[in-house]
Amino acid sequence: MCGIVGFIGKNVKIKHLINGLEKLEYRGYDSAGLSFIEDNNISIYKKEGKIKNLKEYVESILEKDIQNGIAHTRWATHGGVSDENSHPHTDQKKDIAIVHNGIIENFQILKKELIEKGHEFFSQTDTEVIAHLISENYSGNLFEAVYETKRRLEGTYALAVIHRLEPNKIIVARKGSPLVLANSKDFTMLASDITPLIKYTKYVNFLEDDEIAELNSEGYTIYDDNKKIIKRNEIHITWDETLAEKSGYDHFMEKEINEQPQSIKSALSGRIKNNVPNLVELENIKNFIKNDLKKIYIVACGTSYHAGLSMVYLLNAYSDLDINIEVASEFRYMNPHVDKNTLVIAVSQSGETIDTLEGIRIAKEKGAHILSMSNVVGSTIPRESNSVVYMNTGPEIGVAATKTYTAQIAILYLISAQILFYREQYSTEIKNIVSKLEKIDEIFEEVLTTKEHIKEISRQYVNYKNMMYVGRGFGYTAALEGALKLKEISYINATAYQAGELKHGPIALLDEAFPVFAIIPFNGLKEKMISNIMEIKARKARVIALTSSEDERIKEIVDDYILVPNIEEALLPLAVAPITQLFSYNISILRHLDPDKPRNLAKSVTVE
Amino acid sequence: MCGIVGFIGKNVKIKHLINGLEKLEYRGYDSAGLSFIEDNNISIYKKEGKIKNLKEYVESILEKDIQNGIAHTRWATHGGVSDENSHPHTDQKKDIAIVHNGIIENFQILKKELIEKGHEFFSQTDTEVIAHLISENYSGNLFEAVYETKRRLEGTYALAVIHRLEPNKIIVARKGSPLVLANSKDFTMLASDITPLIKYTKYVNFLEDDEIAELNSEGYTIYDDNKKIIKRNEIHITWDETLAEKSGYDHFMEKEINEQPQSIKSALSGRIKNNVPNLVELENIKNFIKNDLKKIYIVACGTSYHAGLSMVYLLNAYSDLDINIEVASEFRYMNPHVDKNTLVIAVSQSGETIDTLEGIRIAKEKGAHILSMSNVVGSTIPRESNSVVYMNTGPEIGVAATKTYTAQIAILYLISAQILFYREQYSTEIKNIVSKLEKIDEIFEEVLTTKEHIKEISRQYVNYKNMMYVGRGFGYTAALEGALKLKEISYINATAYQAGELKHGPIALLDEAFPVFAIIPFNGLKEKMISNIMEIKARKARVIALTSSEDERIKEIVDDYILVPNIEEALLPLAVAPITQLFSYNISILRHLDPDKPRNLAKSVTVE
Repeated sequence: MCGIVGFIGKNVKIKHLINGLEKLEYRGYDSAGLSFIEDNNISIYKKEGKIKNLKEYVESILEKDIQNGIAHTRWATHGGVSDENSHPHTDQKKDIAIVHNGIIENFQILKKELIEKGHEFFSQTDTEVIAHLISENYSGNLFEAVYETKRRLEGTYALAVIHRLEPNKIIVARKGSPLVLANSKDFTMLASDITPLIKYTKYVNFLEDDEIAELNSEGYTIYDDNKKIIKRNEIHITWDETLAEKSGYDHFMEKEINEQPQSIKSALSGRIKNNVPNLVELENIKNFIKNDLKKIYIVACGTSYHAGLSMVYLLNAYSDLDINIEVASEFRYMNPHVDKNTLVIAVSQSGETIDTLEGIRIAKEKGAHILSMSNVVGSTIPRESNSVVYMNTGPEIGVAATKTYTAQIAILYLISAQILFYREQYSTEIKNIVSKLEKIDEIFEEVLTTKEHIKEISRQYVNYKNMMYVGRGFGYTAALEGALKLKEISYINATAYQAGELKHGPIALLDEAFPVFAIIPFNGLKEKMISNIMEIKARKARVIALTSSEDERIKEIVDDYILVPNIEEALLPLAVAPITQLFSYNISILRHLDPDKPRNLAKSVTVE
Repeated sequence: MCGIVGFIGKNVKIKHLINGLEKLEYRGYDSAGLSFIEDNNISIYKKEGKIKNLKEYVESILEKDIQNGIAHTRWATHGGVSDENSHPHTDQKKDIAIVHNGIIENFQILKKELIEKGHEFFSQTDTEVIAHLISENYSGNLFEAVYETKRRLEGTYALAVIHRLEPNKIIVARKGSPLVLANSKDFTMLASDITPLIKYTKYVNFLEDDEIAELNSEGYTIYDDNKKIIKRNEIHITWDETLAEKSGYDHFMEKEINEQPQSIKSALSGRIKNNVPNLVELENIKNFIKNDLKKIYIVACGTSYHAGLSMVYLLNAYSDLDINIEVASEFRYMNPHVDKNTLVIAVSQSGETIDTLEGIRIAKEKGAHILSMSNVVGSTIPRESNSVVYMNTGPEIGVAATKTYTAQIAILYLISAQILFYREQYSTEIKNIVSKLEKIDEIFEEVLTTKEHIKEISRQYVNYKNMMYVGRGFGYTAALEGALKLKEISYINATAYQAGELKHGPIALLDEAFPVFAIIPFNGLKEKMISNIMEIKARKARVIALTSSEDERIKEIVDDYILVPNIEEALLPLAVAPITQLFSYNISILRHLDPDKPRNLAKSVTVE
């Protein structure tokens, strides 16, 4: 993770760096720092903790004019959270300052080499090694020194480097971690994503892997790995900056949970016509889907994986298409069985998830077609895919995914329907699901009216240290996501199981101190779930039941009871999501935590 | 779960019932009870807790002669653990006593009906409803009353019923739960499995679904659903009773962990010839495998699922065969995509796991070939399969699987190799794995020499309430099983993750109070694992690293370090197993728990 930002030009002030970091804080907030050149000397300011600590620290110089500056917000990988491990880092002579997002895998070997040459290190980070190596390679030209250095680096990086003797430039390089460049009338800019830049321009340029660029007050020049100049058109960004505000809610997460009726509508807008999917993004692979498609393979991480799992259940239930799913960090190393008859669907909110990106690169080499889904236009995964369906939900600022999760499920279902439609296997069951999907915003409205009831229930569970989520079928995918949400923002050790697996081990955990959240569909599985709940109650565990049909028997045996509208089992993960999200949100608040910025996590996972 | 046993004949004493229950205790030990007829009256003795409580309670009448008797050891499903919910149950008039293993799904409807007819109930169990219903149907012939009653029951059952006016018979019936009948010179017997019977005879008869039987002092008669007499040969059992002893260890689990060098040898014995698999059990499906096989689907629960997952990784890495896996309780309800070109592999130690059984029944209907693997000869799943490979490890008494898990992996690898051999895809990599597998007993010997070191390490982790196991690739399947073992016998909320998934949520849980067990292979994934461990250490979590190669860098960053022999990554789950098993065993002992009989669990899962 980590976020980097940099400015160079005539009207740059310290506050521009701070404002930029604030937009990137969702990428990490273990520490933050900035650096600029003054009288041919490197100045560095850095502070442990969130960006507001740094902002307070540089309060008196916010309006100070500087020629160039780079800044960093950190999500710790190598070396604990401390001032000394914060970026920017410098070389021994303090000639150079550097900010870095990524992981240098061979840093221990490089460090040993440098120590033998007499270098002394101040931190435990991999990044400091880069600074020393650039210094070692420097002979009057920073661009050349960075170019030489990057040939020695193994791993991933987005770098920005300044040198005290060359205050008129910033050198940047990228491999595996995102980096965007842009120009405005006042300055030239770099950042890990577009959010710090859209205030100044709507036109940006995404650096590609192995490229290196020089920024100065006039603009930027991009070079490829052989120092050949790259010419590329800038991309036009249409996001509205005001979307990234809290609109009166206490937290972004609360806002994002509550705006799901709108965000899902926006995600589905124009994509269903007369109960038939209308995903124009798939038209370019229509013939492939119709004639050659034999297998679908979903590749995703975390919440996106859970959304993908719902699609697996859907296609199992309503088609005879083979469908697999694997978490990206496993997929890329497992020799996945994909070929030219495989459609690989990559699901990544940020479009930058490094494992997913590497996964699709492997799949592409094997001849697979890549369809990706992301919420960030122009991000790396979409750029490397054959087809892209954007989520169209607007930026999600809360680190724990909420509205993008429900949009992912809805769009994955539409993709499933579109595939079956192309293949002339569009059954009445699927048609019915698509038509219900079109009105899912109304279900969300209805589900969100239980808000106060959920708050009441949440209070009963604040002090538990464990929680188990159980379900069957689609209810199981909802249980997985419910448990993850609670883990992420309340730090309660929540775990999810297929209800039928309890007796094969996990039920040993259950007693008065270990409550259970049971998700019960309205179909044949209901009776099995009731049997499972009776087994759980026999162990004296407290039980919340969430069900889509009134049932006195359930009410009688459980401790807390939540009713959602009676819908198709396939849509259960959607109807359940706002409730498990609100439940986790409430518990996080009641435990005095910050749900928008859970410890140890960041929004966009660009390290492995 | 639950176990039932019954005796009828000239030389039956109370102690026969108690001895029989003791053999079945692994099936559940929430409560136990027995019943017999004396002077045309039903006598019942029952006690909450393990069987020794019941034994003490009936101490004075152990030598008492009885004409017939039935007994039960309970694993609670409907109704908590209490004397009143213990079996045997009776009807209102106390004419009838019944023991039952299974779940009656429509008991609430039946109960309501009976209450309207004036019946009064003494327990919360589903079983009591059966007793009342038999009484309602009784008009002088117990066989007819049970026959009528079973037509009303939905769900699963193995039943044994006695009536105070017919002391010369026991009526039994089966649907979905196992039941074995046998004869000896002294008496006729019934039991949930063969262990209570082999003391008296080596010849038994497995009742099939929907059959009903009458036992008397002369023998038994089996009828089908239309009351037609069934003639069937008895099966010869070759198990040696002494195998089921502790051989000087404190617990069966400890013994079973330590006997893995022998049990794996026994499991592989005769099954490899000149580095080529020699699984004669697959010969009858050789042509199918060679010419028609397109997809493999593994169906399993709990530990067996983890063994299956290792096979998935193996075939992904070393073949182009499509392979899927699903937990049985999901598989059976998900419309699994299997057909006549699919080999479904059912893995179940007991051979009685109800979800797995129902899963293969569905797969069979769709035309799939069924290959099953079990440790219990003649159990239901093998009987319903096209081919069977028995595990040949002898009985496993500890409820948490140990030696059967390693045998499962080894045999699943051999099955994989045999399939590739038949298909002429037997690569040198697979041949190498098979040849290493043949000597895996030596690896186990070596791994078990670390016993004292593991004990030392275990002491450091006794007081934690949480634990996370992480790995990548084959190391991930080992992590899953390690976490399950700790959950099962220490009640610590252990969880397993692919190391690459940590940053997508679970790492939020980590801090000083949440240690991590990291499993590190000796290959390309090692560097990625080291990066992950550095991220974990940055959160201040204590780390145990288990690795198959000496590495000073790992030693430096982790708190505890365990070295296993340097072997192929595919064999890592085998080499790791004795260590994670011993770790869990030590912690269970240090927490003063009974590792052989974890709370809430039973060995054979015959309810859904």
